[in-house]
Amino acid sequence: MILDRLTRDLYAEICRIPLIDPHSHIDPHQPAARGLDDILGYHYYTELAHSAGMSKEPLAKELSPRERVRAILGHMDRFDNTVQYSWFLEIARTFLGFRGERPSAQDSDALCDAAERVFGQADWEEQVLKKSNVEQIFLTNDFDDPLDGFDTKRYVPCLRTDDLVFHVDKPATRERLAKATGIDATDSARLRQAVGRLFEHFVSKNAKACAISLPPSFAPYPIEDGALSACLGKLPQQQDDFESKARSSAGVFWILAEFCRDCRLPFDLMIGVNRRVYRDGVHQGQDLFDQRTSLFQYAELFNAFPEVTFPISVLTSVQNQELISYSWIFPNVVTNGHWWYSNIPDFIERDARARLQAVPKTKQIGYYSDAYKLEFLLPKYNMYRRTLAKILADDFVRPGVYSERQALDLARLLLRENAQRVFSVQ
Amino acid sequence: MILDRLTRDLYAEICRIPLIDPHSHIDPHQPAARGLDDILGYHYYTELAHSAGMSKEPLAKELSPRERVRAILGHMDRFDNTVQYSWFLEIARTFLGFRGERPSAQDSDALCDAAERVFGQADWEEQVLKKSNVEQIFLTNDFDDPLDGFDTKRYVPCLRTDDLVFHVDKPATRERLAKATGIDATDSARLRQAVGRLFEHFVSKNAKACAISLPPSFAPYPIEDGALSACLGKLPQQQDDFESKARSSAGVFWILAEFCRDCRLPFDLMIGVNRRVYRDGVHQGQDLFDQRTSLFQYAELFNAFPEVTFPISVLTSVQNQELISYSWIFPNVVTNGHWWYSNIPDFIERDARARLQAVPKTKQIGYYSDAYKLEFLLPKYNMYRRTLAKILADDFVRPGVYSERQALDLARLLLRENAQRVFSVQ
Amino acid sequence: MILDRLTRDLYAEICRIPLIDPHSHIDPHQPAARGLDDILGYHYYTELAHSAGMSKEPLAKELSPRERVRAILGHMDRFDNTVQYSWFLEIARTFLGFRGERPSAQDSDALCDAAERVFGQADWEEQVLKKSNVEQIFLTNDFDDPLDGFDTKRYVPCLRTDDLVFHVDKPATRERLAKATGIDATDSARLRQAVGRLFEHFVSKNAKACAISLPPSFAPYPIEDGALSACLGKLPQQQDDFESKARSSAGVFWILAEFCRDCRLPFDLMIGVNRRVYRDGVHQGQDLFDQRTSLFQYAELFNAFPEVTFPISVLTSVQNQELISYSWIFPNVVTNGHWWYSNIPDFIERDARARLQAVPKTKQIGYYSDAYKLEFLLPKYNMYRRTLAKILADDFVRPGVYSERQALDLARLLLRENAQRVFSVQ
Repeated sequence: MILDRLTRDLYAEICRIPLIDPHSHIDPHQPAARGLDDILGYHYYTELAHSAGMSKEPLAKELSPRERVRAILGHMDRFDNTVQYSWFLEIARTFLGFRGERPSAQDSDALCDAAERVFGQADWEEQVLKKSNVEQIFLTNDFDDPLDGFDTKRYVPCLRTDDLVFHVDKPATRERLAKATGIDATDSARLRQAVGRLFEHFVSKNAKACAISLPPSFAPYPIEDGALSACLGKLPQQQDDFESKARSSAGVFWILAEFCRDCRLPFDLMIGVNRRVYRDGVHQGQDLFDQRTSLFQYAELFNAFPEVTFPISVLTSVQNQELISYSWIFPNVVTNGHWWYSNIPDFIERDARARLQAVPKTKQIGYYSDAYKLEFLLPKYNMYRRTLAKILADDFVRPGVYSERQALDLARLLLRENAQRVFSVQ
Repeated sequence: MILDRLTRDLYAEICRIPLIDPHSHIDPHQPAARGLDDILGYHYYTELAHSAGMSKEPLAKELSPRERVRAILGHMDRFDNTVQYSWFLEIARTFLGFRGERPSAQDSDALCDAAERVFGQADWEEQVLKKSNVEQIFLTNDFDDPLDGFDTKRYVPCLRTDDLVFHVDKPATRERLAKATGIDATDSARLRQAVGRLFEHFVSKNAKACAISLPPSFAPYPIEDGALSACLGKLPQQQDDFESKARSSAGVFWILAEFCRDCRLPFDLMIGVNRRVYRDGVHQGQDLFDQRTSLFQYAELFNAFPEVTFPISVLTSVQNQELISYSWIFPNVVTNGHWWYSNIPDFIERDARARLQAVPKTKQIGYYSDAYKLEFLLPKYNMYRRTLAKILADDFVRPGVYSERQALDLARLLLRENAQRVFSVQ
Repeated sequence: MILDRLTRDLYAEICRIPLIDPHSHIDPHQPAARGLDDILGYHYYTELAHSAGMSKEPLAKELSPRERVRAILGHMDRFDNTVQYSWFLEIARTFLGFRGERPSAQDSDALCDAAERVFGQADWEEQVLKKSNVEQIFLTNDFDDPLDGFDTKRYVPCLRTDDLVFHVDKPATRERLAKATGIDATDSARLRQAVGRLFEHFVSKNAKACAISLPPSFAPYPIEDGALSACLGKLPQQQDDFESKARSSAGVFWILAEFCRDCRLPFDLMIGVNRRVYRDGVHQGQDLFDQRTSLFQYAELFNAFPEVTFPISVLTSVQNQELISYSWIFPNVVTNGHWWYSNIPDFIERDARARLQAVPKTKQIGYYSDAYKLEFLLPKYNMYRRTLAKILADDFVRPGVYSERQALDLARLLLRENAQRVFSVQ
């Protein structure tokens, strides 16, 4: 698949670097797929099939997993040009022994059978981790996750805070918070106390990061305790005025940053997503963005918290130059992976190439899987590793900037050592 | 010209695909050029010559066509680096037998003579269509175009609606509308009736699309009938307040979308142009843009009209990632060509490559000519075909994603079959 | 270092073109470095070292230059992937005879010794200019610079006007202006008179341009004399209201444009920088940007001053398409170099390639050094020359668009002749 020999050699060596995956949605209680439906139910496939003309009916929960699989496979010929399709093909070939050219609805039963057989092995989780050469995987945990019953050295907890920042006005969030902490956050002091308990709990369970995804319009700033209390004090359901909601979001966010500072946790910012833009879309296939956003909105935050490291993901390749420049100037800003709509080879290549030309190599976290099931780490990381090998060959080794060994040292920083240092793992 | 053999082979095969050109400004009553002035009078040449230092005097209507041609040719050495120049060179070489290296003012008479001889042939229109391998060409028709006197199977009518949306407040527009429909659109009900007649007329004449170009700030939303009537009810010339104008634009636009839904016509949106930015520019060389725009402005429209297909052109390569992502998520959003300031090989390559990695292949209309004269289809489509051949060779065939045959099937979707299906032609 | 033979040949020939550097921060009284501290004190190194984890203490003025140098060298292994590092390596190898692989703190004394020896030669300035093949270098002069004591044919004065536009409300600026012109600019008439004297002085000293850097939000428009007088009339320190400040900035800017017109000076606009974004950053390492900006903000200016040439630099590659399109349409807009955060090979290649496809070749100023010391011209221009050679080989010579000789003619326009014509030098 890789025609250039130097690139192929570098790729082969890069594949030998044990990975730290600093962001995923893996469920540590069920990390691997149980059947093909767990693979093809990934929102990339449901949304591409739907976008290409499939209604949502074949995805209904009432249907059998095999029916859902058949529906997706039956529409794949409409998007077999996409990189998301290529991930599936690599999974089918690597894990399921698929030998055909392009899987279709006719392969449905055979593939489902193979998936049940393979994924059903007692040691499948270990097998897939080994084949993918992954050592540690960061999770995305709700703030009220008990974090029990799994190996937190392998599956590293990460405190996800979208609900706290954007839904603290909702009764359900307030109740979950009260249940998790024993505190009803009716004013800023109590909120602070409650958030403190969450951090305490997470840190005690080996959490290594706090994380949040943010809409393009978000701009954090500190809120005075009194003003925040005023927002929180209203019964949640009364908080329907936009301004009060925005103030409480800003205030809660700022408190989270303070706790990140006090608990020495990096704060992952994933910038730029608007939720529910296509309201009738498939599950998890409704979110889009508005490119009119800037890291300038975060300047005060970066100034106010020099002790907090902010690994930053931007949703668009358009914003990559801002990310490069802010990481180049701010000691506490670190580039983080290639997120979602930018996670395709062309954008990865452009974005990674420019980052490697201008951001200190110790400040770049190369990639994360964002995966829901372990099986996706291999094809996604391979996509990144191929791109990285190409850049290292073309921009570093061939022009004599780095030797091959030095290029591989750089790859090791990007795929492993920077994550280890930034997130204090190992 | 193409050095890589695989790319060259793919290009040759792609050239054999009969084209559907889904957007042009061809005049069906005079589709081909009559002289060289019709070629060099294209705004790309007048604006580049003017931008490079030529005053507007040599373009005056009072001058003879040969004088205008000589003026443009005399300034071409200032922009012979541009791709627009290369289109002319290809026309001169392919159609006019030009054998020199670079045409200059000294070639003026010879080229004009050749043009008169060649373009004057009785079957020139047939010849140029055949040489360009074009089957159907979409037009840009004023709403009051009678659409008579030409073959609407070859030259497919398209209802262009800029005047209705942005100049419905002007007496001239109102009068044209009244004349075309017999209805004075003084309130929303009458406007709806008038627009209905236009759609009826266009559909009866084989129109296959409604189209509009939109400024970067435009954001459509529905207007209540009463409010729209209030805007329309004022004498047109009184409508000088910006807000009332904006409301009526939004309201008319929404009504057009409703008729697209009811008449099953796709609605081509060409997003991002500001008119008359350089007020002293040459004819059609005054429009520019403001990159601060987002498809997010259209989210409500896409949600409200799931039955309407929106083939979308964006003016800047910057907005290409938004176009990719919105097409990937919304079933009714389709990528459409490479428009105007993005219609140069570098932006085409970047934009097309990324689209091919992430948008279902059935949802991409590869290219349109935007041409005013038939002679431009060949060099413009060749530019696109070369770029497409390069992408197919590098990203699909060589890495083993597609066979050559499959790559050509993809090209056929982009250049022909998707347009046929989306616009219901053939 | 360049593997492709055609590119290497073109590069070698391009290096023989004597350069006009149309923008630098060279001090004509001390143009070359005196020691290694003058090289490694360049803000690119201090900011990258700081960004990569070095505190600001080792940069203190109280420390010896050698200590500062050792600190930077000690952190360079954290950013030896960057292009800025490669500039230093090229300086060390070309000028200082460095033969090692990567300079580190251990090379500190040897490099400092070499620098003192080499830079201390009586004719070092002449040597470095000759090795870099530079003929003329534009300066950045404060408005109250006497412009005495140097050869203004070699070091061409340029009136930098940021202070006038953005700090005319500050007592210190007012005093400097009064001291330089003998006029206390308390109203618009007096301001105009004072600015007139500055232009007169600069023009008499061979100044060839007026220049300014502008924040992303700036949008110029004319201010009535009365309104400007009202702003200026307040004691400067009272001008703390944002709107009055913005009005006076717009008014002063417009007056500068009028004098550029009357004195026939081009007005260099460097668009997009926000000052002091990272307030605790190193000297000159605090400025960043907000990508949400548009050349549309300057449309009225371009319309109002058709006689003034505006060489324009944009801070982000994102805005390059706007720059291309505005230069393509407006006769008085010229593309100018690759500025600051866009001055890395990947962005240069993308931006220059697209400019060469769509902007008349006579309207492009290829590059400027932005350097503070002469030694940086060589590595920075070499970076540009390599990129240009690659584009000329790939896009022009190999596909048969230009012969090698024509490609080199184009390079000569970009590196020399366009600057000569636009700025009326020689």
